[in-house]
Amino acid sequence: ATKKLLVLPGDGIGPEVMNEVARVVAWMADARGVAFEISEELVGGASLAVHGVPIRDEVIAAARAADAVLFGSVGDPKWASAGFDLRPEIAILKLRQELGLFANLRPAKVFDALVEASTLKPEVVAGLDIMIVRESVGGIYFGTPRGIETLPDGSRRGINTEIYTTSEIERVARVAFDLARQRGNRVCSVEKCNVMESGLLWREVVTALHAREYADVELSHMLADNCAMQLVRNPRQFDVIVTGNLFGDLLSDLASMLTGSLGMLPSATLGAVDDAGRRPALYEPIHGSAPDIAGKGIANPLAQILSFAMLLRYSFAMEADAALIEQAVANVLASGLRTADIMSPGMAQVGTSVMGEAVVRELDKL
Amino acid sequence: ATKKLLVLPGDGIGPEVMNEVARVVAWMADARGVAFEISEELVGGASLAVHGVPIRDEVIAAARAADAVLFGSVGDPKWASAGFDLRPEIAILKLRQELGLFANLRPAKVFDALVEASTLKPEVVAGLDIMIVRESVGGIYFGTPRGIETLPDGSRRGINTEIYTTSEIERVARVAFDLARQRGNRVCSVEKCNVMESGLLWREVVTALHAREYADVELSHMLADNCAMQLVRNPRQFDVIVTGNLFGDLLSDLASMLTGSLGMLPSATLGAVDDAGRRPALYEPIHGSAPDIAGKGIANPLAQILSFAMLLRYSFAMEADAALIEQAVANVLASGLRTADIMSPGMAQVGTSVMGEAVVRELDKL
Ligand SMILES: CC(C)[C@H](C(=O)O)[C@@H](O)C(=O)O
Ligand SMILES: CC(C)[C@H](C(=O)O)[C@@H](O)C(=O)O
Repeated sequence: ATKKLLVLPGDGIGPEVMNEVARVVAWMADARGVAFEISEELVGGASLAVHGVPIRDEVIAAARAADAVLFGSVGDPKWASAGFDLRPEIAILKLRQELGLFANLRPAKVFDALVEASTLKPEVVAGLDIMIVRESVGGIYFGTPRGIETLPDGSRRGINTEIYTTSEIERVARVAFDLARQRGNRVCSVEKCNVMESGLLWREVVTALHAREYADVELSHMLADNCAMQLVRNPRQFDVIVTGNLFGDLLSDLASMLTGSLGMLPSATLGAVDDAGRRPALYEPIHGSAPDIAGKGIANPLAQILSFAMLLRYSFAMEADAALIEQAVANVLASGLRTADIMSPGMAQVGTSVMGEAVVRELDKL
Repeated sequence: ATKKLLVLPGDGIGPEVMNEVARVVAWMADARGVAFEISEELVGGASLAVHGVPIRDEVIAAARAADAVLFGSVGDPKWASAGFDLRPEIAILKLRQELGLFANLRPAKVFDALVEASTLKPEVVAGLDIMIVRESVGGIYFGTPRGIETLPDGSRRGINTEIYTTSEIERVARVAFDLARQRGNRVCSVEKCNVMESGLLWREVVTALHAREYADVELSHMLADNCAMQLVRNPRQFDVIVTGNLFGDLLSDLASMLTGSLGMLPSATLGAVDDAGRRPALYEPIHGSAPDIAGKGIANPLAQILSFAMLLRYSFAMEADAALIEQAVANVLASGLRTADIMSPGMAQVGTSVMGEAVVRELDKL
């Protein structure tokens, strides 16, 4: 069966870094005989500019039909005042919700060659390897009632609703427990059960599921404010963290910044396996569209390339090929090449396309 | 007029560190002729054990009648399964809400003598001095509907509601702008307006208030996930941060951990000035009840002592006395005394009461 990929470069540096993935895809076809059928669509500000909406229904349908979606990034200051329903971000939120992509896997990993890039002391972050599993189609992101209403006296009121159900909590916790079994076998579940009933239910459901099906995995619970502190104090205490949509948004960004190299971090967002054995999935770098450096040819393409490696691993079970790409990236770093965002004294600074070419050259050697 | 203080030591290390404040209060009476009328009550687990509730109505009334409340900390694993309505934490939540303590001021300051205590590199945090102003009686902490409901199929659903009104946003933003004018004159307002309408209203209201009354202060806006990252990447970019209850909970804990010395950080929570010119206020250390080290005489009393200094400054406009206490604390640190939590090689490790005595001895010298 051909492997159908939908590529959505998006805004800012998205298209630039996606270009470098194209080289790796071409290499896969040439050297390994693995062919992908690739189609490409506009999303975010790029779609707004042409179609007047951040994502068209046709694109959602194409994402559904594809075996996997490779996403760049969305967000563009040009559209800052486009209105709440026309934000470029709608593109990613709609894809998550329409495809039921409920488990956002966000690794925070420190690459040995880049341990100095962190603002944290090397002895605190060396070897760091955390996986944050963030619920991504529920919680306060999507709960209703929501909106802004005007009160009789002319003042206004903004409302959002956090909702979590037993089954929403269970399915994302399962992903976390399953991942933990392939890693350090430890899960830390994070909420604010001392203040929020949705967090209390979260803790109860995770605890019960653990006792029922995952007693072999070590489970701990932590309040979200304490987790924010512990990630700074001693991040290596964590293996897998599982949490809701909003806490996951903050905590995973915090965790990835501990590595000092956002430009290196990929992510996956997975849905449920359907009756035909298919699982919707989207892969994207953790970094955003970085409008300030867009179009300059200096963005780091490695997170986007590593997102493609994650895609091979999770959507096509091509573990060997994924590992090959990851090894090539490690070798390029070891050889001293750096884009501006991860540059340090004594290294060789290169632009986006030189970095992409270097990865392919390393792949040739492996 | 006598100055009426309500002292609420609470749980864990609360009573131990509060003992050391008593020395400072005694010194104030002796050396400066400033007398306080002090009453003390149980809260948290300590109140649960005796009265069966985390805080009695009489204690709320006493807090209302006092000129200021000095709070220790609440939280005790013994009461972990006491039920949602009997958590020790109810004590602080109820005090905030019943007294209308809407502005939680949480400084994150790196003491020169302790710059090495941070897990962040000294060059990133030296001189750090951020003030986080967190809204503390609204948002998802108190919004309704809330609770856990059982659905017809036996599964459950947890719900919480985030609500912010124009006036709730304006009054806390005013506190932030006013503070900024006495500091670096910069306010960064933080929400998730790209996902939540309550955040969108927050941004609009802060922007309008700024234009109307505070155009001399520099205002910027930041998404909460980005703020979590920026606090790790370059915390010194901030002067005053203003944000909602839930984001403030995580971000202020994160910010205080950047200093590496939670045991040093005080906080204030202020209400509105009433017609008689009185302003309800509560002061507490940022650290929690630390049950693991309670009763051992090793807790750091400095955050509690500095909370008392904040109390003098904000509730009684006793700036000189507040500064005196802060100077005494700085001198004690400079002399090399350290409690276990801030110990480093070459320093002299002491317990809670030796540290408290040392502050008073320094006060004598000033
Ligand atoms: C773009 C934005 C809506 C999104 C989110 O808040 O989920 C982003 O921050 C992320 O974490 O993927
Ligand atoms: C004890 C708890 C309810 C409280 C909160 O979440 O507000 C604490 O974390 C704080 O920040 O003061």
